[in-house]
Amino acid sequence: MRLCGVAMQPLRPVLFHPDVPEIAFIEQTLLPGTLETRSARTIQELADAIRRLGIRGAPALGCAGACGIALSALITRESDLTKFISAVRHDADLLRSTRPTAVNLFYGIDRVMAVVESAGSVKDAQVRAVREAEAVVDSDRQTCHAIGNHGLQIVPHGARILTHCNAGALACGEWGTALGVVRSAHEAGRDIRVYACETRPLLQGARLTSWELERDGIDVTLITDSMAAVLMRKGEIDLVIVGADRVVSDAVFNKIGTYMHAVCAHAHQIPFYIAAPFSTFDEDAKEEMVPIEERAGDEIRMIQNCSIAPRDIKVWNPAFDATPMNLVTGIITEHGIFRLPRDIDLIKEKKKSSGREGFPA
Amino acid sequence: MRLCGVAMQPLRPVLFHPDVPEIAFIEQTLLPGTLETRSARTIQELADAIRRLGIRGAPALGCAGACGIALSALITRESDLTKFISAVRHDADLLRSTRPTAVNLFYGIDRVMAVVESAGSVKDAQVRAVREAEAVVDSDRQTCHAIGNHGLQIVPHGARILTHCNAGALACGEWGTALGVVRSAHEAGRDIRVYACETRPLLQGARLTSWELERDGIDVTLITDSMAAVLMRKGEIDLVIVGADRVVSDAVFNKIGTYMHAVCAHAHQIPFYIAAPFSTFDEDAKEEMVPIEERAGDEIRMIQNCSIAPRDIKVWNPAFDATPMNLVTGIITEHGIFRLPRDIDLIKEKKKSSGREGFPA
Repeated sequence: MRLCGVAMQPLRPVLFHPDVPEIAFIEQTLLPGTLETRSARTIQELADAIRRLGIRGAPALGCAGACGIALSALITRESDLTKFISAVRHDADLLRSTRPTAVNLFYGIDRVMAVVESAGSVKDAQVRAVREAEAVVDSDRQTCHAIGNHGLQIVPHGARILTHCNAGALACGEWGTALGVVRSAHEAGRDIRVYACETRPLLQGARLTSWELERDGIDVTLITDSMAAVLMRKGEIDLVIVGADRVVSDAVFNKIGTYMHAVCAHAHQIPFYIAAPFSTFDEDAKEEMVPIEERAGDEIRMIQNCSIAPRDIKVWNPAFDATPMNLVTGIITEHGIFRLPRDIDLIKEKKKSSGREGFPA
Repeated sequence: MRLCGVAMQPLRPVLFHPDVPEIAFIEQTLLPGTLETRSARTIQELADAIRRLGIRGAPALGCAGACGIALSALITRESDLTKFISAVRHDADLLRSTRPTAVNLFYGIDRVMAVVESAGSVKDAQVRAVREAEAVVDSDRQTCHAIGNHGLQIVPHGARILTHCNAGALACGEWGTALGVVRSAHEAGRDIRVYACETRPLLQGARLTSWELERDGIDVTLITDSMAAVLMRKGEIDLVIVGADRVVSDAVFNKIGTYMHAVCAHAHQIPFYIAAPFSTFDEDAKEEMVPIEERAGDEIRMIQNCSIAPRDIKVWNPAFDATPMNLVTGIITEHGIFRLPRDIDLIKEKKKSSGREGFPA
């Protein structure tokens, strides 16, 4: 299905249609050239879409994981509850195996899996799974708007903001996390300008961030990742805001390149913020416990179908890096701006009171 | 002409054939897929080759500039000496206009222009111009080997070296400056490993550095520019060596991205070296006096013929950046390793004694 590209129509990267049933998603690998949705009607199709980054972005992966379990519940042909739960669990394991670093995927899966496992019948499990998946998607939208609002306090009028990768509408419900702050500031008339780093190797900044900001009429300039430090030295960057794939007690995991920007921002005394929902927090974990996904070497050797390096050249291709907390000025969440490890007890308390205690491991 | 890709055959990016007359050069935009030479028989053809980076790299531009003036002297049909010199000067201006930042180009042009201007006859000017251009090319080769030898003192056994862009054989006579040090260390059995940053936007690291090191059997791993800081944090980088396009008293101009690596190296207490011949030095100048070339936006929006961003997205595309001297551990030259501003008098003296006083502005 080809979508209409009307500006300001909210971008919804993941939509669940329980009546079909299917998960419709914006095929992000085709952007910015083509805005099209695809659909997954099996868990294998959904897992493929996640693996090849047709669906990507930590919060969007949370939605995809939640909807995936609901889809599994609807398509599993099994009348015995124990066998039914076991089959859905099998699908959950398949989805969990697609991306090891982003914690939101596990969060979305586990939230819906929990209601399936506590259901009294197959029918009850199906009804509750759909309702819980829809709740995950809805709360993700509200969360992004709340992040945007809390972020306003750190965005001065006329701010020039650097961002990396895509923590935008395409990565979330519709507003974005890092770009949620940008959108809220734009909506509030702050006259901001954004520098989008292209984000090699997969160019999410060039393909997605610059596209979605331009579409919304927000002033955006595309640069290569290596130009950010020069802008900082020239006094052209007032703050850095990026998203996160996992926040642990001593570090933030985000797209490769984030650490370099954090080091350079620190050297130039520029505030460096993370924008991420509580579902990204895994605050009892430490950096050393988190695996970093290494992706195929051809992501570096080739761009689209163009070969840009010797065919057999050795490469190293980690998808993420870890930024230690001493380089992070603050983490903008739906409940306010926090620092770690300073605010760890406060965060745990907030999680508890917002019904998210017992964060799944 | 298609060249034979026999390993270890020296790569000579610029060759002057006064008998034709023509300048043969490796068409670097076709690498690594195709190793071919092209030839320039007019100054316009040579200027085009330089502008589109068919010939690139600071020392190679010096050779191209020198050979260009000799070519101009040979093809200028003018028997009156004054008019002859004026015509060659016109060609010199055309060549100078191609790239504003790399000083070696001006150096090569000015060295040969000086002998043309002091000649007693057109014939004399032609003979002396050819001899001087050949001397520039020959001395560039010797210079690179001398840089490599001096560099040995800062490369420990087993060193893991990070480099950016291509300061290799393709950028110079045949050995390289930064990669000259790498080659000399390899030849000396130091068991080194190289991390080559791909160097967006024009990918000289992916296309040229990884190709020429692999061709010479040197252990090389290709990474995106944004991964270097992560390797530094993991303790995987022992030193950084890059080339330079211009060395002034307070800064080094080199390929965009160099500054970011220097900031990160400093933050991780990793030595950061420049390898550059004296012809790159413009030690009486200051950073603020040097123009930085900004290149076409499509270099960022497209890779080869693939569009990777919205077609009309605003971009900023400086070809170079400036690294302040406080981030530079040392500058490896053909006369030893220097620091600026500390060694400025010593450098001036060495220049004088090696017959390069009166460096052209």
